[in-house]
Amino acid sequence: MLWQNRSMVKIGVIGGGQLARMMVPPAVALGFDLCVLAETEGSSAAIAATMVGDYNQLQVVRDFAKTVDVVTFDHEHVPLEILQTLVAEGVEIHPSPKALAFAQNKLAMRRRLAELNLPMPIWAEINSPAELQEFLDANGGEVILKTPIGGYDGKGVRVIRAVEEADDWFAFAPLLAEEKVSFTRELAQLSARSSTGEFRSWPLVQTVQVDGVCAEVIAPAPNATPKTLEYAVEIARGVAEGLGVTGVLAVEMFETTDGRLLINELAMRPHNSGHFSIEGSVTSQFEQHLRAVAGLPLGSTDLTDESAVMVNLLGVDETNDFVTHYRHVMQLHPHAKIHTYGKAARKGRKMGHVTVVASESGWALAQARAAAEVLLRG
Amino acid sequence: MLWQNRSMVKIGVIGGGQLARMMVPPAVALGFDLCVLAETEGSSAAIAATMVGDYNQLQVVRDFAKTVDVVTFDHEHVPLEILQTLVAEGVEIHPSPKALAFAQNKLAMRRRLAELNLPMPIWAEINSPAELQEFLDANGGEVILKTPIGGYDGKGVRVIRAVEEADDWFAFAPLLAEEKVSFTRELAQLSARSSTGEFRSWPLVQTVQVDGVCAEVIAPAPNATPKTLEYAVEIARGVAEGLGVTGVLAVEMFETTDGRLLINELAMRPHNSGHFSIEGSVTSQFEQHLRAVAGLPLGSTDLTDESAVMVNLLGVDETNDFVTHYRHVMQLHPHAKIHTYGKAARKGRKMGHVTVVASESGWALAQARAAAEVLLRG
Repeated sequence: MLWQNRSMVKIGVIGGGQLARMMVPPAVALGFDLCVLAETEGSSAAIAATMVGDYNQLQVVRDFAKTVDVVTFDHEHVPLEILQTLVAEGVEIHPSPKALAFAQNKLAMRRRLAELNLPMPIWAEINSPAELQEFLDANGGEVILKTPIGGYDGKGVRVIRAVEEADDWFAFAPLLAEEKVSFTRELAQLSARSSTGEFRSWPLVQTVQVDGVCAEVIAPAPNATPKTLEYAVEIARGVAEGLGVTGVLAVEMFETTDGRLLINELAMRPHNSGHFSIEGSVTSQFEQHLRAVAGLPLGSTDLTDESAVMVNLLGVDETNDFVTHYRHVMQLHPHAKIHTYGKAARKGRKMGHVTVVASESGWALAQARAAAEVLLRG
Repeated sequence: MLWQNRSMVKIGVIGGGQLARMMVPPAVALGFDLCVLAETEGSSAAIAATMVGDYNQLQVVRDFAKTVDVVTFDHEHVPLEILQTLVAEGVEIHPSPKALAFAQNKLAMRRRLAELNLPMPIWAEINSPAELQEFLDANGGEVILKTPIGGYDGKGVRVIRAVEEADDWFAFAPLLAEEKVSFTRELAQLSARSSTGEFRSWPLVQTVQVDGVCAEVIAPAPNATPKTLEYAVEIARGVAEGLGVTGVLAVEMFETTDGRLLINELAMRPHNSGHFSIEGSVTSQFEQHLRAVAGLPLGSTDLTDESAVMVNLLGVDETNDFVTHYRHVMQLHPHAKIHTYGKAARKGRKMGHVTVVASESGWALAQARAAAEVLLRG
């Protein structure tokens, strides 16, 4: 909403995950009333949960929206029809369902990015085995196939070398096929665009994915050329403005062997690639998201030191509970900033993260990795 | 409590003021269950309030203590007898009532500091006009008189030039008289001591008081000599260990014209002089306090940059509501970190603060002051 010069603003967040949880500290500092519609009792964001209910039900979301001044998201899974109905009823939602449609549907996203002439891998809509065969033949016999809706953290994504490997997916067509990009590394450009149109970007970061899940983030991206840094911001601005994004936007990109940047994925909310900003930037992505959706001016995105490194705490197994290793990790790593999401343990689950901010990225990386190892394995 | 290697620790805080409120962000990050016993509904720390009640009633505090693993404080006003009773009943309290007694009673504090040979102004216990006259005569005819119990932010403190000026106070004797120190500036040494005995100190800061209330804090204290820095830490350690403090300890000191440090006041909890540490230090005083009372190792107290400046937002009048100036201040000062305490406006009341962290203290001070001015006066 456009900031109303009132003394209290109620910001509603749909979804009670770790992103909503990490909005709590800036909301407390700025005195915003953060209200979370959580899926379950005892969610990650339980401290701010004001309602528990199913975001797939119009009436639940409508009742929640009535209690707040503006609605935003912890995830992009709320059905578009529900959001469109509420917008028609006068509810202010950021990002808008128009923008969110591109985050929900990867085919719609690719089509729109193509209209905007933004750089991305070769892609095609796939409706049949024949179309997939044709795309395979044209792209070196090995391609990426994605379900356009509902994928995350490597889910809904397959490397395909033969049409048969996608047999069970054609029922969900249209699918999205993409060339398998020969990349040297993955980068992410975090930015924010407020509901007034103001745009700010953080320094470009390098992300390290393991099995399709973000494992580490290094800010700023090491050895990025001024041209790359500038181009990454230009891409982010093109996406934010072209898709009408409000709030935080993460653009995940491949850097190719020949130095090009290609857009891989988008997220229209605070994102794992931006967790470093809690300690590593003057304004964290969570504070910035709240400012942006409230229509307030955005804060400085300067780094607080030369380098910030974030390492995810991915669950080792069901018994994994890194809080029990606090004594050990705090003794060894007094500079490690530990974040736990309050989630039950599960193999591969994002259960928390560690950030180390330092003048030297190698030291920060070593500290953050070592601290994460202690937290996960004692 | 000694850290139990368990997955959840419940930390109880008596008092729902801004100090309890500012413990929320580190509790969220570390996954501690923060439970606040608030005086009223809608307190500053309402988001973490699990009980509302009068901390002067044993049964209220006892009921609250039963819901948590360890008890600590937002303020030092809980009656000692209540805390002593609960300790006898097995409740773990940090700081202990033994230590807290010295924070509650300034005469007891002076006596103990004298036993420890720690530096302080000349002082005397005053029970009669004759004793006050004697102290006046011995100390230049102008002294400071304090009620030993219940004073804060300039309340319970008077500059006295004639015995008659204290006529209405003798009923509350014994009183504490102190020489009026000729000081060049006021300093504060923030430190923490965990329940395991570990001790860490932050860089010495300069505090600027206006009408007995903290207005500004500059970290680190400009132009402090290595000897002064070392001595200040030695004093803080002497107090922490000598008084058996657990948790954060703030030692407010005078720096005299001849370069001595004299202990003015003590606080055994996070303190206004340490708010800079939220952004200005690797570990904030609020996180450190939680670690200390939970018996966990303490975090690094390194500054995150060369300088951090905090300016208090002291209410201008009853209609003062600086949240309405957010648009203006955020436009002008993208580096300002704004903290609001969610309290009703009142002239002179601490309603929030602004911190600016920078490589240059002059710039940080100018930015923080200007941002505070916009927040208070539009």
